[in-house]
Amino acid sequence: MLTRIDHIGIACFDLERTVDFYTRTYGFTVFHTEVNEEQGVREAMLRINGTDDGGASYLQLLEPVRDDSAVAKWLSKNGEGVHHIAFGTADVDADSEAIRDKDVRVLYDEPRTGSMGSRITFLHPKDCHGVLTELVTSAKSPHTTED
Amino acid sequence: MLTRIDHIGIACFDLERTVDFYTRTYGFTVFHTEVNEEQGVREAMLRINGTDDGGASYLQLLEPVRDDSAVAKWLSKNGEGVHHIAFGTADVDADSEAIRDKDVRVLYDEPRTGSMGSRITFLHPKDCHGVLTELVTSAKSPHTTED
Repeated sequence: MLTRIDHIGIACFDLERTVDFYTRTYGFTVFHTEVNEEQGVREAMLRINGTDDGGASYLQLLEPVRDDSAVAKWLSKNGEGVHHIAFGTADVDADSEAIRDKDVRVLYDEPRTGSMGSRITFLHPKDCHGVLTELVTSAKSPHTTED
Repeated sequence: MLTRIDHIGIACFDLERTVDFYTRTYGFTVFHTEVNEEQGVREAMLRINGTDDGGASYLQLLEPVRDDSAVAKWLSKNGEGVHHIAFGTADVDADSEAIRDKDVRVLYDEPRTGSMGSRITFLHPKDCHGVLTELVTSAKSPHTTED
């Protein structure tokens, strides 16, 4: 069950400049930064608000670290902008299977590692009215496999 | 002060089909529908979660009702997808003025009417790293001018 907007993923050419824009213009603060080698990005998570499922909603600012990453290809085609949206769930495995059964393409056979140790998968944008859609189970969720 | 992700605005060609996708695939429900003649759209608001500022985060599904609306033009160029993101604030007037002072173009001289009686304005996407960004004060906020 999807219980929150977990984050909005925004692709940018220069992470420092984009972080500077969001912090200076809106007063948002950087909650976490990391490099995700598998996804080919480095990223900054800006925590915007808490959510009533016990989680939070973030902006995820993404800069590619290699030219063959999905985000690099997307940027070269589209320029900077909203790359994907993500919904939070306590059980990404169950939800992605249920969604696969509704003939929506799930891009990974098994969830992979996302921001802050989360487990994530993506749904094909062509099956989602043009929106690349991510499902996220945060690392601290009681239903993750780490428990 | 921007205190929440208020909504993600998603442009679509057929509101009923897109609502059907979001309700059938994810189990989301329609919280509100309306036609905004000024914006040239009809829309469905799907409430996803409550936020710790006392508000909520929504998906806003948008279908143009006339060919000269901004959303119609955007759709004809981009196809379906994320059209804008919106941050919630208790005082859209003060925040839009403060942001204007930081040399970000605010698209309206005065806030206009948005979903559910809210007051809204937009920031120019070219000043926001490619993201059309809306600021929203909900109708029930204690700081709106209706009080």
